[in-house]
Amino acid sequence: MTIADRWLLPDGMDEVLPPQALRMESLRRTLLDTYYRWGYDMVVPPPVEFLDSLLTGTGSDLDIQTFKLTDQHTGRMMGISADVTPQVARMDAHSLHREGAVRLCYCAHVLRAQADEYQGGRSPVQVGLELFGHSGIDADVEILQLVLESLDVAGASHIHLAIGHIGIYRALMEEAGLDAQARGRIFEAIERKALGDSDALIEAQVADAALAAMLKALPRLHGGVEILDQARTMFAGASASVMAALDYLVQLQQRLEASHGDVALYFDLAELRGYQYHTGMVFAAHVSGYGQALAKGGRYDGTGRAFGRPRPATGCSMDLKLLASLSEQQPPADGVWAPAENDAELQARIRTLRGEGVRVVQALPGQDGSALETHYRCDRALIKRDGQWGIVPISEMK
Amino acid sequence: MTIADRWLLPDGMDEVLPPQALRMESLRRTLLDTYYRWGYDMVVPPPVEFLDSLLTGTGSDLDIQTFKLTDQHTGRMMGISADVTPQVARMDAHSLHREGAVRLCYCAHVLRAQADEYQGGRSPVQVGLELFGHSGIDADVEILQLVLESLDVAGASHIHLAIGHIGIYRALMEEAGLDAQARGRIFEAIERKALGDSDALIEAQVADAALAAMLKALPRLHGGVEILDQARTMFAGASASVMAALDYLVQLQQRLEASHGDVALYFDLAELRGYQYHTGMVFAAHVSGYGQALAKGGRYDGTGRAFGRPRPATGCSMDLKLLASLSEQQPPADGVWAPAENDAELQARIRTLRGEGVRVVQALPGQDGSALETHYRCDRALIKRDGQWGIVPISEMK
Repeated sequence: MTIADRWLLPDGMDEVLPPQALRMESLRRTLLDTYYRWGYDMVVPPPVEFLDSLLTGTGSDLDIQTFKLTDQHTGRMMGISADVTPQVARMDAHSLHREGAVRLCYCAHVLRAQADEYQGGRSPVQVGLELFGHSGIDADVEILQLVLESLDVAGASHIHLAIGHIGIYRALMEEAGLDAQARGRIFEAIERKALGDSDALIEAQVADAALAAMLKALPRLHGGVEILDQARTMFAGASASVMAALDYLVQLQQRLEASHGDVALYFDLAELRGYQYHTGMVFAAHVSGYGQALAKGGRYDGTGRAFGRPRPATGCSMDLKLLASLSEQQPPADGVWAPAENDAELQARIRTLRGEGVRVVQALPGQDGSALETHYRCDRALIKRDGQWGIVPISEMK
Repeated sequence: MTIADRWLLPDGMDEVLPPQALRMESLRRTLLDTYYRWGYDMVVPPPVEFLDSLLTGTGSDLDIQTFKLTDQHTGRMMGISADVTPQVARMDAHSLHREGAVRLCYCAHVLRAQADEYQGGRSPVQVGLELFGHSGIDADVEILQLVLESLDVAGASHIHLAIGHIGIYRALMEEAGLDAQARGRIFEAIERKALGDSDALIEAQVADAALAAMLKALPRLHGGVEILDQARTMFAGASASVMAALDYLVQLQQRLEASHGDVALYFDLAELRGYQYHTGMVFAAHVSGYGQALAKGGRYDGTGRAFGRPRPATGCSMDLKLLASLSEQQPPADGVWAPAENDAELQARIRTLRGEGVRVVQALPGQDGSALETHYRCDRALIKRDGQWGIVPISEMK
C-alpha cells in the first residue's frame, strides 16, 4: 500500500472541492426554492432500506445497480438507494398517506454499483420531483415545465427535449400476442435501434401483416412534431389506446409550444427506457456537448401497489453534479480579510460584518496574507488607520 | 412478504417527511451560510472510498462502524463513509494541497453499521468544520465559537460544554511506561468511570507512588473551572507537557468566558473519547433533554500523515437531524392556492408571483380545495372577481 494508492478514489465516486461545491450548493438552493414555490414539499429519503421495499416493482435494472448490505441488527438484506423515485413513491403511499395530489421534491446522494453510459458517475446527487395522485395531462405538463425551468436556472441553453409514450409499443405488442421470449427479442432489437434485426424478428413472429407493418414503423418514427402526423396515418387501424397515446403527445406538444416555444421538441415513439417501470409519457432532456441526458422521467401510474395503495404518478430526476457543471461561473472573491489580532474593537467589527452577511476571514497568528484572492476569496481587508478599523481593497493593504 | 413488512425501515435508517425536511433544509442553509461568513469553504466528500483511504489512522471504532462493499470494477474493498472528518483530512492533505490555514465545511449523509448510545440513528446528516494547518489556540477557540454559534442558531439553550485534553492522560501514562495490556485495562476502567477498578489497577501496576496518585486523581477531576486549579496543585510534580495541557485549558476557559460567558463550561480531565485519534483539546456540547452530545470534536494533529503530509487539525461535527429537532417551530402556511384553470391571465399572474418568491400551488383538474392550510400550506387564494385575478385570504375563497 503506497501513499499514491491511498489517494485514489474508486472510479465514479467523486469528491467535490471548492469552488465547485459552492456552485453546487447554490444551484441546489435555487432548484429547491423553485420547487417550493410551485408547491413541492421536500422529503429526505433514507439512504438505505430493506431490499424488499427498495426494489418492489422497479425491475431488474435497478437491482443490478443497487449495492447490497447485510443489516447487522436483523440479518436482513438492505440496499443503498440507487434511485430515489421508488422511495418517494413509498413515502407517498404509506408514510404520508394523503388523498389527492401530492407534490414532493428531494435532493440526495445516491450510489450505483456500476457506471452506465447514460448516468456518468456512480455517486450522482439526484435532485427530482414527483407528483402523485393525478393522472391528467396537467400533471405531466407541470413536471416538464419544471424540468425546463430547472435546466434554465442551471444555465443550459439550446435544450433538446425528447418525448415518447410507452403506451404505443405496449398496445401494439399486446395485440401481437407473442410469448415472453419473442417479446424480449423484439424489445431488445428495438431498444438498440437495430432496424434490420427488429424487422426480421417482427416479420417472422407477427402473422398479421398490418400489425407487423406498424411494429416495423415504430422505431422509424422519431423526429420533430411532423412524425406525430405520420404516426396518426400509420396507426389509423390500431387499437384505441395507440391513438389515445398519440393524441396525448399532440396535446403535450401544444401545451409546451405555448409555454416554451424556444425548446426543440423531438419525438421518439420507440423510446423504451424504463419500460419495466413507466406507463405513459417518457422524456429525456439533452444539451449539446453532454453525452448523457440532463433530466429524465415520465409517468409511472400504479406505483405504490406493493404498499397496498396504487397511485397515479409522474416525475423527473436530474444529477445536481452534472447540472452544476453546465455553468463555469466562478463565485466572486467577496470576502474581507482581517488580521490576527485579539483586539476587542476588531472582534466587534468582525461580528457586526458577519451579522450583516459579509464573509470575514480572520488570519490565524503567524499566517501571512498571501493567496488572499485565490484561496481565501477576499477582495477587501480590515486595517487600522488613525486608530480606526476600516475596510480597504486588498491592493491598499500594505 | 406482507405489505406491512414492506413499510418497515431498518432500525435507525430514518426518512424525513414534510415539514421536518423543510426545517432541516432551512437549518442546513443557516449553518453553511454562517460557516461561509467565517471563511469556511464547502466540500462534498465522496460517499464511498477504498477502505485503505477511509480507515487510515482512524482506529478500530470507525472500522466497526463502517459498512463494507466490494467494488465490482476493481474487486477492492470499499467503505461507506461513517465519519466525514478523515475524508476531509485527505482532501486537505492531497486534493487541495495548500500551504497554511485551510478552513473547510461540509454537510453529508453518513451511514453507520451499528447504532451506538452516543450517536442515535445509523444515518445521521453530519455537518461539520475542519481547520487545518494551524496548531495554536486561536484555531481551537474559533471552532468552539462556531459550535456555540451553530447550537444557538439551531435554537439550543442552556448549553453545557464539556472540555478535556487528551495530552494529560497520555503524558501520565507515558511516564508510567506500562505494557500495552496494562495500559489497555487502565484505559478501559477510566473510560467507563469505574473508579474502584481503575484505582486497583493503577496501584497494582504503577510503582511510583506520586505518579499512581496522579493517575488515580485523573478520573476524579471533573467539574467547573475550579478543577483546573485543583489539577495544577495535584499535578505540580508531573512532566512539562501535563502542565502545558492544563495551561492550555485555562487559556481556553478565559477566551470562552470573554466571548460566551453564558455557556456552562465543564472540565473532565479523563475524557478519553476519540483517544486513538485526538491529540489535544477534546469537547462535547450537551443540552438538557438530549442523551447524546449535540456537537463534538477536538484537535487531531498529524492528520494526513498516511497521505504523506501531516498537518495540524482541529474541528467539530454535529448531526443536522438532531439539531433540527431542537426547535419544533412549524413553518408558516405562506402559500397562495390557484384554481385549475388554463387561463392566460391566471398563468401570467402565477408566473409573476413565483418570480417574486411567492409559493403558488395550482390545483390540478378535479382537485378540490380541501386541506389547503394543513397539506398545501396555503393561507391565501387567487380568485377572479369582476374579471380580475386577485389574492384573498382562504377564508374568503368560497
